[in-house]
Amino acid sequence: MKIGNFVSFRDVKLEDGFWQKKYDLNKNVSIFSVRDRFEETARFDAMRFNYLKTGKKPHIFYDSDVAKWVEGVAYIMEHDRESMKENEKLIDEMVDAMAEAQREDGYLNSYHQQIEPEKIFKIRTNHELYCCGHFIEAAIAYHHATGKRKLLDIMEKYVDCIIRAFVTEKTADFATPGHEEIELALYKLYRYTGEKKYADLAKHFLTRRGVAEEDRGYYDLKHSYATQDNADIYSLREAVGHSVRALYLYSAITDLLQEEGDVRLKSSLDSVWRDIVDGKMYITGGVGSTHRYEGFTLPYDLPNMGAYSESCCAIAFIMWAMRMRVVERNAEYGHVIERIAYNNLISPVSLDGKGFFYENPLEIAKEDYGREVACTPENREHLPIRQRVEVFHCSCCPPNINRWFAEMAEVACFDEDITYIEQYISCTANGKYGAIRIKENYAVDGKAEISSVNYTAGKIAVRIPEWCTTYTAVLNGNRVNGASEKGYAYFEVDEKFTLSLDFNIAPIFISANANVRANAGRVALCYGPLVYCLEGVDNGDRLNKISVDVDELSDAKIYSDFHGFNSIEMRGYRDEDNGKLYFNAKEKRTKEVTLKFIPYYAFANRGDTDMLVWVREK
Amino acid sequence: MKIGNFVSFRDVKLEDGFWQKKYDLNKNVSIFSVRDRFEETARFDAMRFNYLKTGKKPHIFYDSDVAKWVEGVAYIMEHDRESMKENEKLIDEMVDAMAEAQREDGYLNSYHQQIEPEKIFKIRTNHELYCCGHFIEAAIAYHHATGKRKLLDIMEKYVDCIIRAFVTEKTADFATPGHEEIELALYKLYRYTGEKKYADLAKHFLTRRGVAEEDRGYYDLKHSYATQDNADIYSLREAVGHSVRALYLYSAITDLLQEEGDVRLKSSLDSVWRDIVDGKMYITGGVGSTHRYEGFTLPYDLPNMGAYSESCCAIAFIMWAMRMRVVERNAEYGHVIERIAYNNLISPVSLDGKGFFYENPLEIAKEDYGREVACTPENREHLPIRQRVEVFHCSCCPPNINRWFAEMAEVACFDEDITYIEQYISCTANGKYGAIRIKENYAVDGKAEISSVNYTAGKIAVRIPEWCTTYTAVLNGNRVNGASEKGYAYFEVDEKFTLSLDFNIAPIFISANANVRANAGRVALCYGPLVYCLEGVDNGDRLNKISVDVDELSDAKIYSDFHGFNSIEMRGYRDEDNGKLYFNAKEKRTKEVTLKFIPYYAFANRGDTDMLVWVREK
Repeated sequence: MKIGNFVSFRDVKLEDGFWQKKYDLNKNVSIFSVRDRFEETARFDAMRFNYLKTGKKPHIFYDSDVAKWVEGVAYIMEHDRESMKENEKLIDEMVDAMAEAQREDGYLNSYHQQIEPEKIFKIRTNHELYCCGHFIEAAIAYHHATGKRKLLDIMEKYVDCIIRAFVTEKTADFATPGHEEIELALYKLYRYTGEKKYADLAKHFLTRRGVAEEDRGYYDLKHSYATQDNADIYSLREAVGHSVRALYLYSAITDLLQEEGDVRLKSSLDSVWRDIVDGKMYITGGVGSTHRYEGFTLPYDLPNMGAYSESCCAIAFIMWAMRMRVVERNAEYGHVIERIAYNNLISPVSLDGKGFFYENPLEIAKEDYGREVACTPENREHLPIRQRVEVFHCSCCPPNINRWFAEMAEVACFDEDITYIEQYISCTANGKYGAIRIKENYAVDGKAEISSVNYTAGKIAVRIPEWCTTYTAVLNGNRVNGASEKGYAYFEVDEKFTLSLDFNIAPIFISANANVRANAGRVALCYGPLVYCLEGVDNGDRLNKISVDVDELSDAKIYSDFHGFNSIEMRGYRDEDNGKLYFNAKEKRTKEVTLKFIPYYAFANRGDTDMLVWVREK
Repeated sequence: MKIGNFVSFRDVKLEDGFWQKKYDLNKNVSIFSVRDRFEETARFDAMRFNYLKTGKKPHIFYDSDVAKWVEGVAYIMEHDRESMKENEKLIDEMVDAMAEAQREDGYLNSYHQQIEPEKIFKIRTNHELYCCGHFIEAAIAYHHATGKRKLLDIMEKYVDCIIRAFVTEKTADFATPGHEEIELALYKLYRYTGEKKYADLAKHFLTRRGVAEEDRGYYDLKHSYATQDNADIYSLREAVGHSVRALYLYSAITDLLQEEGDVRLKSSLDSVWRDIVDGKMYITGGVGSTHRYEGFTLPYDLPNMGAYSESCCAIAFIMWAMRMRVVERNAEYGHVIERIAYNNLISPVSLDGKGFFYENPLEIAKEDYGREVACTPENREHLPIRQRVEVFHCSCCPPNINRWFAEMAEVACFDEDITYIEQYISCTANGKYGAIRIKENYAVDGKAEISSVNYTAGKIAVRIPEWCTTYTAVLNGNRVNGASEKGYAYFEVDEKFTLSLDFNIAPIFISANANVRANAGRVALCYGPLVYCLEGVDNGDRLNKISVDVDELSDAKIYSDFHGFNSIEMRGYRDEDNGKLYFNAKEKRTKEVTLKFIPYYAFANRGDTDMLVWVREK
């Protein structure tokens, strides 16, 4: 059940534009900065099995942190191996150490081998299979980029060990991973090597979830931290639990659907998709609204201040949406990818490429920090950090971002019977039907130009953005109307063509569903794919004093002054403090102010200041 | 530094009206219900020193729970001893057991003697002095009501033990109480017995606070749970920490000020008063906005959903305001007492008199309960209970309410050079200048009639309510204008007079200070002293979908159909759910609805339903 494929990022060359800048920042700054922080925090040492030497204890998830970084390096090598020379050396030496440390039976985990060997495959929540999954992805990427088999061999040997422990000999004390990820990695390995046993193991893990007797002991955790054990994969109805794990699971289920075409799986996945997209997704594309178990709560529960909206979710959600697109021709998947890409995916990274957010709140009010003056540290309420940092104790997000930016050009084009332009990203893409060029300044002027380098399909489809109400298309200088279906417009084209699209971008205020309590009486300013926000540095702190009249947006001024993107100015109103705690509502006064909105993703790059996405309607 | 005294509740006879009904409910239902729950939960057994017999472990605060109940019973006896016959017997038998259990040296505490005798006066946070304080108050009340000295003798002997442990021999491991209360009780005991040593001990505790070396070990708790150790009592500037403890402390400091007239104390207390009244007080008069340490946070931090607003604070705050009135002629103290009395003081008790709230939120949204579906019980967010219960594990509030309703008629009149009518409560009050009658249906029609039974002062003053903008006064049938000062109007009267006051009550929407983030763009409906709320049972759940146009309040309909009080109906608007999660703000639709507001204090008496005080402005 596959209707096509995304054009591999290996066949997409980013060209001058926003996304190339983001790509370069990752390649030139972030990947090195993350490496240095990982070196300092003994993450590489963990994989060098240096614990006895350094005394620095590995953590149960260190392998996965390193693996994601390796994967990112490998993807960058595909286009510029030279730039990663230093990193390649580091990786090769580390892989040598891993080969030496790998047990006779294939087992390989820096934490368990060095710290708790007696607990290997005994504790479901200990992330062993998750770590393995990430190293499988890294091994594939590294082999493809360098031709070096060593890491891939290590991981194939490890997977054989896992097959014995979980399938043939069943020596493991649990049946399915506490943290999903290996499932989708195994499908990747299967597709890369052609070895059916990897797909079989993935399916084994997927189909045992929620039903395996061996996991029963963990089932009382099903309403606790994390695991998606509430239903078997054929009966999913809603998104629950830890959201990164959930989205990796849904991705792997979609892989299984792609392989075997079982329509029950499509129905499961469709239910979960709707549950998220219709009620559990922030306007930024973020998901997972509670910090308590980093996860999904109930529909419409989308608090702004405490929005967890983990950076890893942005990536996992795009990964799933891409897989869904592979089984269904529907522009909605591209809409969601665009929403995430321009907001929750890029808000984690500082404009200088070094700092990262793990949580991506939609509101910061400094007044709330330390309000509980008499709290002990253990007793304090959870509030997200207000400035990005270079490394976390649990630093899953930074290397995930490293690898994702290195491969995300893959979201641009989808090859079916024709090419679908899924995302407007300046690039040249070499697909099944030849090469196409996309040129855009999409998030600034709402325009994109698609042209052939050489293109043979005779037809092309473009995704009409969700925010676009009317557009114009000009083909080789002539206004044309494309036939529309499921969010795509179709155009007949020659081998040589230029299609200019203007989606009539304009600022717009968005309301949320009446059930979203946090946004009652509030609006969010959007401009094309970008969600905007107010920051204290421009508008004064205590941003909830501010209200807007949505009808006055027509007078807004747009300045292309913000790191190549637009800032938007409009009239607003600020409640005045009359010194009284309570007073007759008729005495309430506001004063006119000029508001400056900036793209949400760029918040917290100009010092410690308040931020607000959902602004009160006057 | 005393300018007068409240007319003792013993000299006030409540007459037909709202407050008499509340008094009777307490006397006929609540006091018995609390007794029964305390019997079931072995609280009386604790004081009978029955632990070895029953095996039911006393808690460190059980003595105080029982003491407050005894105090309540004693106050009721002042007007109707017969009605408490059964309770008197219970108390006498318990007092016998206490006398037997009291140590040779005077020490008496059901927890420490039975469970941890080795820790007597070793652990500051163990509530021993707090428990003693409450039993001192109970002993005075019981002696006054019955003439029986036994309990008073016990407590005087215990206080002598405390003087040795904390002052003369200094055997205690700490200097000042972890939970304040004994200080104000000691002033009461001093005034009741005339024994200076009690005032000295109170002053000792007060002046050692925040400076005593012996408490240093607890000072790192000063930014943690509870204790008011942040400053000495002459240097207080803001209200911090556990709010019940803070308010008991401020009350005792005011007692010290009354006794010694040190103006530095007045300046300390004035600062703290303003800090609370101008920024830390809910519109209901509730204080203490965080559940984490049951305490004060920062100015303007007044969340509605999580409003802790502990019932005991309502009482403690009134106690302090009354003491402040004793040193300063200013109607503001009466304003605050009224605000608390009609809202946060009575919201804890169910209309049937049996159920109690500990926390008094200003919003209930059922959708928030259980939203974190994958939480373990330990990990769950704190949310207040939605229905009143008859007893708590920490059941400080119910007996506090028992004693307070039994004596609160004392707030009615204040005797200075003349009589000040402080609160409009139907009663006959026998003060210094003879007897006065107050007749009112104040919270319904905004009127009150003050008449002489026999009155000799030649002048009378009445507090003009904070909410009143214009009033009319009719003296013996003639319109008169009283001279105004600091919120009071003064009238020349004969021995025989009838003064009819009409404060022109009307519904009004109140705004909160622009810095109160929780109430930005919101208004609260008030009617005279009463704050109103919406309940789901009348208006449908998800009350944040509702908005009001404040100008439409003039069309409101007022029905006197709610337990003798008014309900208020007006037009409102409910956001419609169009099925989309995000959409163009211009497509937002609301539908007209008729809203029904009821007095806040009566919320949660008609089943489990949403509630909202601060409603969105359209």
